[in-house]
Amino acid sequence: MGKEITSREQDYNQWYNDLVIKGNLADYSAVRGCMVIKPYGFALWENMRDVLDKMFKDTGHQNAYFPLFVPKSLFEAEEKNAEGFAKECAVVTHYRLKADPDNKGKLIVDPEAKLEEELVVRPTSEAIIWSTYKGWIQSYRDLPILVNQWANVVRWEMRTRLFLRTAEFLWQEGHTAHATAVEAIAETRQMLDVYADFAENWMALPVIKGVKSPNERFAGAEDTYCIEAMMQDGKALQAGTSHFLGQNFAKAFDVKFSDKENKLDYVWATSWGVSTRLIGALVMAHSDDDGLILPPRIAPVQVVIVPIYKGEEQKALLDATVSGIVTQLKALGISVKYDDSDNARPGWKFAEYELKGVPVRMAVGARDLENKVVEIARRDTKEKTSVPIEGIAEYIKTLLEDIQLAMYNKAKQFRETHISQTDSWDEFLQLLDTKGGFVSAHWDGTAETEDKIKELSKATIRCIPLDNPLEDGKCILSGKPSTQRVLFARAY
Amino acid sequence: MGKEITSREQDYNQWYNDLVIKGNLADYSAVRGCMVIKPYGFALWENMRDVLDKMFKDTGHQNAYFPLFVPKSLFEAEEKNAEGFAKECAVVTHYRLKADPDNKGKLIVDPEAKLEEELVVRPTSEAIIWSTYKGWIQSYRDLPILVNQWANVVRWEMRTRLFLRTAEFLWQEGHTAHATAVEAIAETRQMLDVYADFAENWMALPVIKGVKSPNERFAGAEDTYCIEAMMQDGKALQAGTSHFLGQNFAKAFDVKFSDKENKLDYVWATSWGVSTRLIGALVMAHSDDDGLILPPRIAPVQVVIVPIYKGEEQKALLDATVSGIVTQLKALGISVKYDDSDNARPGWKFAEYELKGVPVRMAVGARDLENKVVEIARRDTKEKTSVPIEGIAEYIKTLLEDIQLAMYNKAKQFRETHISQTDSWDEFLQLLDTKGGFVSAHWDGTAETEDKIKELSKATIRCIPLDNPLEDGKCILSGKPSTQRVLFARAY
Repeated sequence: MGKEITSREQDYNQWYNDLVIKGNLADYSAVRGCMVIKPYGFALWENMRDVLDKMFKDTGHQNAYFPLFVPKSLFEAEEKNAEGFAKECAVVTHYRLKADPDNKGKLIVDPEAKLEEELVVRPTSEAIIWSTYKGWIQSYRDLPILVNQWANVVRWEMRTRLFLRTAEFLWQEGHTAHATAVEAIAETRQMLDVYADFAENWMALPVIKGVKSPNERFAGAEDTYCIEAMMQDGKALQAGTSHFLGQNFAKAFDVKFSDKENKLDYVWATSWGVSTRLIGALVMAHSDDDGLILPPRIAPVQVVIVPIYKGEEQKALLDATVSGIVTQLKALGISVKYDDSDNARPGWKFAEYELKGVPVRMAVGARDLENKVVEIARRDTKEKTSVPIEGIAEYIKTLLEDIQLAMYNKAKQFRETHISQTDSWDEFLQLLDTKGGFVSAHWDGTAETEDKIKELSKATIRCIPLDNPLEDGKCILSGKPSTQRVLFARAY
Repeated sequence: MGKEITSREQDYNQWYNDLVIKGNLADYSAVRGCMVIKPYGFALWENMRDVLDKMFKDTGHQNAYFPLFVPKSLFEAEEKNAEGFAKECAVVTHYRLKADPDNKGKLIVDPEAKLEEELVVRPTSEAIIWSTYKGWIQSYRDLPILVNQWANVVRWEMRTRLFLRTAEFLWQEGHTAHATAVEAIAETRQMLDVYADFAENWMALPVIKGVKSPNERFAGAEDTYCIEAMMQDGKALQAGTSHFLGQNFAKAFDVKFSDKENKLDYVWATSWGVSTRLIGALVMAHSDDDGLILPPRIAPVQVVIVPIYKGEEQKALLDATVSGIVTQLKALGISVKYDDSDNARPGWKFAEYELKGVPVRMAVGARDLENKVVEIARRDTKEKTSVPIEGIAEYIKTLLEDIQLAMYNKAKQFRETHISQTDSWDEFLQLLDTKGGFVSAHWDGTAETEDKIKELSKATIRCIPLDNPLEDGKCILSGKPSTQRVLFARAY
């Protein structure tokens, strides 16, 4: 009947791929490592983007657009950033193709059209943006600059996975400029809060706010703040990052401002971003073996209505009733699809919309009409209820809110039961191998130990939580003194 | 006081650049031929994009996203398309940089990271999209596919101009697939109508709908429909195109479908696009020597309020009144900015908002308050009026509609007086040299004559208007028989 979905138990990775592809979110493309985001997946991204965009604007940011290409000499200006991204840069070297003289109808790169300076396809835009800000900033009056960009970026990853890690992806990148470090840090923290708010209240995805260890920092940052989420297989996923860049980029691009006392100083910077990777997190946090489960607040279709009938006469009666319900739902701002297509049976449609994760399904048949009821099925719990048509729109409105909350609570409960604490290295390894999830353990604060732990356990420090209590202890691996626990996990 | 703007008479091209740069729409970037779209310019683009996006969705289209890169072998599959774009392709040949052994801190392209197959940065997406559609289409049930993409594209132009012709630009490209030629042609025409509606009713830009001569067709199209606008210097500007692609791309990528009788046939295609170039058209069609004049329906700020006061006490009184006005304006959906910054005098602000093309300026001073009036200045005509505060929001709402209409009418009148008709070659040249504008003249229908006319006059056939009457005549250059006039012009 429906499309075959691999179960999570059978093969978690294949289950994920099945959901993304058969759920019509995205597909592989003809370009290595790049995906096609299909209309249903893109509608989901549009909803997420629109909510985030409003949050950015409500916090005083404006959108702008900077070039896709970064000349190599600009790219290499901030050395740590350049070093961090050099290995995954797509590079444009030529600007023309020409007819292949040996092969009719084919083209070759025109060797005479070689660029004097190679262009890097942006893996992130700090370099091109800070070279631009140099021209925008002279005085404290020009600050702060609060700019965001929605864009595509390219990072040539060797192992790619739909949404989670693709050579090209869509994202937003905020790039702000400030007169003081205090103000820049406040901005960094504010945007982390915006991301956490979005993840929790729109994606129903509980996250832990924290700061990265030096090893896991963004290349070129002084501090990287992050939100970390937990997937159903016990692996962590970094869902968003917000970087305090200090004066690193201002120094690399010589961006100074004169303050109120006419004293020159370098400008302070932040950058922050979330990407289409969030869709991968959404899929893996909530879905089940029957398909996607999308949170109502960002689902492209919140309610699907499937008619069950025999013959045109019954159909006409159903149409009339459903039309009234659709009008009421739309008046409440609820997105609804009436699927009365005659090329599939109701059972097939049920399975299809379960696969696509539509939060609420309404089925309505001839007998229902007689009884003035419809059948309501919620996607998250699969509960079915017979509900009076009278007041149905308000009922659904409340139900959508209930589903949103229930999804969050379920994911939160899963996350809570997947945070373990240990002071024993053996138990640390055992927890990671059997239960997964976050493991809270002491760490001596050195990059060396962090590397060693990663090598031995495949777990990384996901973050030092923001509200972390100080606590004397001994490092889980080295036994050296430690002042606080950090969160380890295997991660996407 | 304000920023210096070159007058149109003095140097039309410099006037245009001054408006774009000093009006804060965009600026040159560190990348040859690429621009930075600044927040004010991007807010304008967002408004345009949002209106268009709604129009596309209202006509049944969905957004999706396809890869930035096109493998060379796919790019060259549709030969005419490939040939048309080959000369302006940015090509990615490598996927990694590495430290320069001879130059500490610098990077070089890693010669060992050469791609097996070069990737073309999309100049347009027919190739990558039709190679994808092959996997989406089997039967007539899969048709039509009505997809649009908002994206950046790259065409390596040798001579670039802000917005009008840049190496990278933002656009939307619709790509639809149909079971019949009739349906595809209807789609092509529908989207042309959408573009004309947008240009005329939102941008206040009158356009002529027509079809291109074979020479001016999109590479790979069977027919290219276009909307053509007239700029203040008498040059034409192609503002949008909609292509009937026939079965060319379906054949190149072997995309067939089985119809209701189970017969296999190639799929019919359209594509259609408008770009950030429209902003260039907007600037050149409406603005004057004092700056931009933006149509109210897409202006980022519709009303600016400037207080005129001495001392904190007066300021507090003004604030209270203005706050009420702002609330009323927002309630009517009008975007308003209260500029009470104390770092510039009112006269400077007046000039600044004139430069930025804000449709309505409200000035309010202490004496105005006593008289319960404000001063309203409209940007298009520069008329100033004293208007009672009572009912001011409704007054402004009507005024904005009046300005929108007046701008359209003014541009339309200019366009009408810049369509000439001639049957004499000498007059043809003289009209182009002195008056400019469109010249309606007979053409024998051959590419050879078209080329010759272009060579001799620098004018091209902008279009054959859709509502063109048939009329016997003689070609303006060759004297050969002709059945209709076409519109010539020098063009951007």
